This record gives sequence, structure tokens and C-alpha cells, in this order.
Amino acid sequence: MGSSFSFAINARDGDARVGELSTAHGAIETPAFMPVATYGAVRGVSADELRAAGAQILLANTYHLEERPGSEIIAEQAGLHGFTGWRGPWLTDSGGYQVTSLADRSRLDEDGVTFESSLDGSRHRLTPETAIQIQERLGSDIAMVLDECRPNATGSAASAELRAAAERTLRWAERSSRARQRTDQAVFGIVQGGTDTALRRANAQGLASLGFEGYAHGGLGLGEEPTQRADLVAATNEALPAASPRYLMGIGYPPDLVHAIAVGIDLFDCVIPTRHARHGVLFTRDGVLKLRNAQFKQDAAPPDAECDCATCAQHSRAYIRHLLRVNDTLGARLASVHNLRFYLRLMEDARAAIRAGTFDALREKIREAPIR
Amino acid sequence: MGSSFSFAINARDGDARVGELSTAHGAIETPAFMPVATYGAVRGVSADELRAAGAQILLANTYHLEERPGSEIIAEQAGLHGFTGWRGPWLTDSGGYQVTSLADRSRLDEDGVTFESSLDGSRHRLTPETAIQIQERLGSDIAMVLDECRPNATGSAASAELRAAAERTLRWAERSSRARQRTDQAVFGIVQGGTDTALRRANAQGLASLGFEGYAHGGLGLGEEPTQRADLVAATNEALPAASPRYLMGIGYPPDLVHAIAVGIDLFDCVIPTRHARHGVLFTRDGVLKLRNAQFKQDAAPPDAECDCATCAQHSRAYIRHLLRVNDTLGARLASVHNLRFYLRLMEDARAAIRAGTFDALREKIREAPIR
Repeated sequence: MGSSFSFAINARDGDARVGELSTAHGAIETPAFMPVATYGAVRGVSADELRAAGAQILLANTYHLEERPGSEIIAEQAGLHGFTGWRGPWLTDSGGYQVTSLADRSRLDEDGVTFESSLDGSRHRLTPETAIQIQERLGSDIAMVLDECRPNATGSAASAELRAAAERTLRWAERSSRARQRTDQAVFGIVQGGTDTALRRANAQGLASLGFEGYAHGGLGLGEEPTQRADLVAATNEALPAASPRYLMGIGYPPDLVHAIAVGIDLFDCVIPTRHARHGVLFTRDGVLKLRNAQFKQDAAPPDAECDCATCAQHSRAYIRHLLRVNDTLGARLASVHNLRFYLRLMEDARAAIRAGTFDALREKIREAPIR
Repeated sequence: MGSSFSFAINARDGDARVGELSTAHGAIETPAFMPVATYGAVRGVSADELRAAGAQILLANTYHLEERPGSEIIAEQAGLHGFTGWRGPWLTDSGGYQVTSLADRSRLDEDGVTFESSLDGSRHRLTPETAIQIQERLGSDIAMVLDECRPNATGSAASAELRAAAERTLRWAERSSRARQRTDQAVFGIVQGGTDTALRRANAQGLASLGFEGYAHGGLGLGEEPTQRADLVAATNEALPAASPRYLMGIGYPPDLVHAIAVGIDLFDCVIPTRHARHGVLFTRDGVLKLRNAQFKQDAAPPDAECDCATCAQHSRAYIRHLLRVNDTLGARLASVHNLRFYLRLMEDARAAIRAGTFDALREKIREAPIR
């Protein structure tokens, strides 16, 4: 399985590493950040703009795409690569995260999850097997197993629930593995277990013995402290095959990313750069700009004078602020291009620093930035 | 005045004509269509995309820009050319149309119009003089005089009102003319008079005697029949200087455009291509597609197989439909690029046909197209 998929580690600096993921639709240099294209597009942004910003792989969502437009329709148009404007590598999330994010509309049993659509009340059933089948129809280069993602909580009942979810995730991973048909799609297992180190490590060992092409850390970024998260990831990584790619799901702010790279993470996805952009929050080397603030009304400077993105080359803070205020979607688009370039350049900087053996210095530089 | 502005007519076919408008920010081949960029941007579409689609000049709105962000702010950033991403020619509408479109929030007297902002209740006063001053701050290449645009109506009271509005528009045009300070900005007068041919002709003669760089037909597209409109425009054109550019404001569908070109119109603007695009209505050589219709769910064809736009080169009807349905603004953007290219190519085709003396044949071809 996954015969067109391989991963090679080309440089190390401490536990941080530079690698290359090869897929049937192109190679990805890691550490890599995957822009979130839930429905097959990064909101308002074209494939050409994503490529120009340095994107190498996008993330789409199995549950949402199955709801609209449906995987059959995407399969008819040669999968995500044919249906959307992005011809490069795709990763699809399984829908396991929607167990948490759509908790009030989902019901879970041992066999799978039933979602009630918020659109028309229709029911959608996901099992480990159908999640793989749908992703095989979508034709993503990397598929994720269906997992049970639980919000963190304390207390003995919550702890038992967490353990049950992690154990079920492992049983589901095995079923996912058996359900695979395609040989040109990698599948990644997902570690669950909340903030319980022993539980996560046991989960990781179980997944490793099933033998996936890569492994993800799931269920994080749901309330734990960043330092606790880095410790959990580091401890869990010890239980995963060192030569396999490791993906930290749904994280985070720039400092979270460099801390995770330091403990050996290779792949990231997060809605923060694009969601913040739509709200007028822009990342810069000097901190975060809240462009809707009145102080930027007459500011003729680009968002970041040192930035090499298409937005900073042409547009002022005042103009982007104006577009956001009059609800012209060009504003969100220009801000998204900028924020994605910020994240993708951070990955480029990280790879260069790891190769140069100076990753600690980069990590020191990327601190929680002031907000303006 | 308007020393960097000139207009030359280079070819004729009947009353249809090909010309070149020269401005300080570039030349415009006419007949030309101006995409509507009310707030300084065509919603969701970049300047690069507009240029690639064949746009030569954009239209922005004085009233709306004065409300947000304010002409002072735009003036500080070197006018519309510096503030926005579009460095080519700009035309600014005066705000006269808002007398009609914002009727319930505007109050008109002999001196000018007071608008109450729907945003915060603040009052904005436009007079013929301030409309010119604001447009001089905006730095547009072509400014429009403040006019009183009245909806068409029948009956003797309405007729008296129409006459009063047309006469006031003429008095305002004279005040506008006297208020001019810039020498690098053309100003166009606006003919009013509803569907009363004699009134419109008298208005046109009055404007012509004031001597503007161009003349616009205002107050049309508000309910009159297309054939009546063409007759009104033709009759009014006889009263305007033949060597000056003529602009039909706010019109219309493709057949309306070719009929107006046939009677000697040089410039157009209209929200139809972009507004329709946002609603999923796409223009093609074979008719209009309503992409939200279920029949396009699995349609792998581009919107128009013969279209040379960036959207048709890369995307299927099914994908654009999907983006529109999930409210991804990329859908409206791709559809806008396509519809604008349709309109701008129609102008290219019209210019070529006039040069070739085959405009009648083109006009026959552009009929009301079937809707799918």
C-alpha cells in the first residue's frame, strides 16, 4: 500500500528534522504547513496564489466534502486533483474531528458515527471503512483514519471516556487498515488519549504495530498548555517509528509550530492564518496587526515591509482595512495570501535553520508577538 | 481643463464608432465597458485579473467612497491610482444616481443633496461644487457632474418633476464646470429628462454649450423599453458634439450594449456581469447558465468551452457550482472573472466588427440568449 509514497529525512538539528514526502502528485519538503481547504478550496484564494505563496500540499475534509458535493461527484472528475484547481498533493482529514466540532449533531457507537446534517437534517454515516472508501474516491495522496477525537476534561469519568475513545480509535485504525484498496494513497494513523501521556504512548505503539505510512497527533490544541503539548508530543514520538512522517493536527500559532518542529513534527495544518485573515488579523515579523483598528486608517505601509508576498508588494494597510470594512471579499483574499505566506515562509525558514544547525536560534526568535 | 485628456474617432460603421480616449493614466479603446468598483475594487477580483480580462478603465462611486474611507484618505495616498491596486484610468460617478437608489435616505434642494448614512446616521452633503472637489481629491481621470437622477413615471405631476430635475441638472452642470480646479481630469456632463425626447435634447444642447470633455446619458435603464431607450439615445446624440465621447450609464445586458453601440455610444458601465456572477448566473455564447441549478452538479465542462478567460481555462461548472453552494468566495470570484471577460470580449468584438464594417452582423448575433 502507498507504493507511490515515501518519506526521506535529509537533515537533523536535535530532534528537528528536514524531510521530503514523495507522493504521486509531487514532493513536499518538511516541515510543511498545509493550508486548510475544507471544501476543496482555501476560501477566496486560487491555486495559483497558493502555489506562489509556497504551498505544497492542501488539506480537505472528508465529512464536509461527502456532505457537499459528495465524493461520487468528485471521483467522476478524477478526484480532488481533477475537481479542484489544485493539482498538487492533497491530504484529507477523516471526519473524526467533527465528532468533537459537531458534537451536538453526531452520535457515536462502536461501529462508527452518525451525523445529522445542519443543512437539511439528512443523516451521514461514517465508519472506519466508509471513511477510507470516501477518501479513496476523493483520491487524496494522504488519507487519515477515522478517529474519535474527544475534548480534554478532568475527573475520573472523563478519564475513563478518554481511555475508551483512545482504545476505540485503535480498533478503528485496524479496521481502516484492512479496508484499504488503493495502492497510490498513503494512510496515516491518529494518536488519541488527551493529555494522558501513558495513554497516548500506548496508543502510538498500537498504531505503529499496525504499520501506517505516517502518524498524527490528534486531540490536541483543545485546551492544554503549549508546554504540556510539546512534552506530550515528544513523549509520544518516542513510541512512533522514527523514519515515518509525524503530523500535528490543527495546531497552531507560530510559536506552537516551532516548538513542535523542535520535538520532531513534520506536518501541520491550521485554520488560524486564513480565519484570522478574514477577521483582519495579520501576522508580521513585528507582531500581529488588527487591521480593523482605526490606527491603520491612513497607514500607507504594506502589512509587513519585509514580506515577499503578493499582497505586501502592492497594497497598503489602509486599503486592505478599507476593503475589510466595506465587506469586499478582496480584503479577506489579500489578507489570506499574506498570512499564508507568513506561515509558509516560517516553514522555509525552519527548514533552512535545521539544515544550518541553527534551529534553536530561530525558535528563540519566534515568540508570542505583540498585538497592535 | 482636461489637458491630458483627448478623444479620437478612428473608425465608423453607420453611427457605431471606434475611438481612443487618452488619459494621464493610459488609453482606452472604445466602445469600452467599465467594470464597477464602487468602493475602489471590483468585489473579490484583483487588478491583475481585471487587466487579464481586458479591462482598461474602472468606475468608482463618489458618494460611497466619501462615506468610506473618505476622499481625504484616498488623496493622501495619491488618489485612487495610489490607494487601490488599479493604476490605470478611473472614472468616478458623482453620487447623483444615489439620489434615486438611496431615495429614502436623501433630501434634495436647489443647492445640493443631503444623505443620511445607513451606517451611523451621519449626514453627508453633496453639492455640484463638493462633488467636483471630492472627485478632484479622488484623482479620477474622468469625473461626472452631480445630476438629479429621477425614476421614470407618468402623469402630469411626474412630468413636471422630470422637467424640474432636468433643468436643475443643467444648472448644476454649470456650477460643476465653474468649480473645476484640476487640469488633468476630464469632466462629463449628464443628460437627464427621463423618456421625454424633447426634454433630453434640450438638456443635451444646454450641456453642449457648457463644453464638457464628454457626455453621459443618465436616468435610463429605469423601466423604459430597450427600443425606446435606443431611440432616446439616438435622438439625444444628435444634440451632442459628434466628436465627444458618449457614455450610457448603468446599462445593461449584452443586446442593450450592442444596440447602444449602433447609435454611437462609446462607454458603458454596469453591475450586471459581477452581480449576476455572485448569484451564479454566467454569460456564455450559447446563453445564460444558472450554475446553482442541479443540472450542473456533475458537469465537468468549463462555463463556456470557447471562452478564453482564466476561469474557463481551469475550472468546471460543477466546481464553481460547488464553491457557490458552500459560500466560498472563490466561486463568486471565478464567476466574476468569467462574466467580465464575456463583457470585455464583446467590446473587443464590437470594435473589430466596426473596423471591418460588419457591425450589423454582430448586432444580429447578440440576441437575448436562452437561460439554462
